[in-house]
Amino acid sequence: MLDIAIIGSGPAAFSAAINAQQRNKEVRILGRSIEASMLYLAEQVDNYLGMPKESGKTMMEKFLAHVLEAQIPFAESRVDQILSMGDYYVIRTGEEFIETKAIILALGMQKSRPIPGEKEMLGKGVSYCATCDGMLYRNKKVAVVGETEEGEKEANFLAEICENVTYFPRYQAENYDLHGNVTLDLRKPKAVLSDNDRTKGLLLDDGELLCDGIFFIKKTTPPDDLLFGLQMDGNYIAVDRSMRTNLPFVYAAGDCVGKPYQVSKAVGEGLVAALQAAEDLDQLKK
Amino acid sequence: MLDIAIIGSGPAAFSAAINAQQRNKEVRILGRSIEASMLYLAEQVDNYLGMPKESGKTMMEKFLAHVLEAQIPFAESRVDQILSMGDYYVIRTGEEFIETKAIILALGMQKSRPIPGEKEMLGKGVSYCATCDGMLYRNKKVAVVGETEEGEKEANFLAEICENVTYFPRYQAENYDLHGNVTLDLRKPKAVLSDNDRTKGLLLDDGELLCDGIFFIKKTTPPDDLLFGLQMDGNYIAVDRSMRTNLPFVYAAGDCVGKPYQVSKAVGEGLVAALQAAEDLDQLKK
Repeated sequence: MLDIAIIGSGPAAFSAAINAQQRNKEVRILGRSIEASMLYLAEQVDNYLGMPKESGKTMMEKFLAHVLEAQIPFAESRVDQILSMGDYYVIRTGEEFIETKAIILALGMQKSRPIPGEKEMLGKGVSYCATCDGMLYRNKKVAVVGETEEGEKEANFLAEICENVTYFPRYQAENYDLHGNVTLDLRKPKAVLSDNDRTKGLLLDDGELLCDGIFFIKKTTPPDDLLFGLQMDGNYIAVDRSMRTNLPFVYAAGDCVGKPYQVSKAVGEGLVAALQAAEDLDQLKK
Repeated sequence: MLDIAIIGSGPAAFSAAINAQQRNKEVRILGRSIEASMLYLAEQVDNYLGMPKESGKTMMEKFLAHVLEAQIPFAESRVDQILSMGDYYVIRTGEEFIETKAIILALGMQKSRPIPGEKEMLGKGVSYCATCDGMLYRNKKVAVVGETEEGEKEANFLAEICENVTYFPRYQAENYDLHGNVTLDLRKPKAVLSDNDRTKGLLLDDGELLCDGIFFIKKTTPPDDLLFGLQMDGNYIAVDRSMRTNLPFVYAAGDCVGKPYQVSKAVGEGLVAALQAAEDLDQLKK
């Protein structure tokens, strides 16, 4: 079993990882590729002390090099769900289940706002995870709203289960890699339609689509959907000054706990979260 | 008048400075030389993301280079006192008075514990600032307990005013640069002696010394002595998550606000303090 699983692939995650490992913890980073980090796209960053005038790309590459030099396992993966098992946690990434004593959430900023009805109908026809909830829609009609190419995979997976799948990409692409029974629809979803507290379709900028289920595949899953019972403070994960969340042995750091969205803050919070997690685990042993 | 005066010369101070300047604020760093920073003495630091396996000295030199490249004024100076003038502050460093709208305290860790009686007799014969309180002891007998060479200068200054000065160095040195009427005493101060709520001398490991005033010249002045009314939380400056203290337009960051004593935390907090100070000053203008 892991000591500390670190979820994310930005500065907060990497800082947490190197610090947790230095405290003799067995750690593993579960995150997207570094290209997915906001920082990677920054033209120039001049306010991370000691690294004047670096491009975001170079900075992320240096950060990753530090992680790899420390021989910290970094598996590119998308975390679908985290389950509390009482005194440990299980993390589901696709088909893999990873057991860990503690978790540091460094999920980054959630960039997209929910459309009207999306949050209200969550668990009533709306889902953020095809792998988790796909089976509920066997032989039914579903829509997939994808913010990234990840959505195409999810749509193709659902196509094996569902009667039909309509795919709404929310990004630009040359072509979409969709299987036979997935229909591409380039209209813009405006709201989730419901009837009797049950999802019945999507309102579009031009018309509507009736369906039984809607999967929103986000760049980042909302934290409290990833981990049930996690306390939020508006759109941010609620933490104290030690970066503890309301759940035992779950910590959070970086953009997902609030502004300012800056490298230095993320790196500092990653360290604080890691040291607190290590200390709490050490206390447990006593 | 300065927008933001940054007091300190470690990672928190420097991070605050580059971030405040990027927000178009007129800033100035008032701090000791970088050799005085705890980090400077570290043999190797491997947990500041992006700079694996650096010596503390090299890291501090890179940090200073970043500050100088940004053309931020950095005057090596010892801050004696900060006075609130209602809607601005005046900082006294030796003979100079600096006016500023906001202040970021990045004072580092206070390394020495007070001896018994020291805190209790503060303002009743005990002082942390010869420049501030020396005149009160004209033609009287005083002791100076110096944690650094700074103490020698203070003792020599007091020798011009006082009847006699006894100097207790709390550090090793080849020789002490003391003027004629300063007596060197290598015994160890153990407690402040008092009588009727007034200081009457120093208890030493071997005997005692009777005197009217005692000056403790610390590596760092206790923050609440530097700035009257500053709220503490134990030995640390009390701050909220935006690094605001209880006083308007006064912020704090780094080791002086609490553990862990780590570069990443200091750098992150320096950024947060600077952005909050800049934002608060901008609000004022509206």
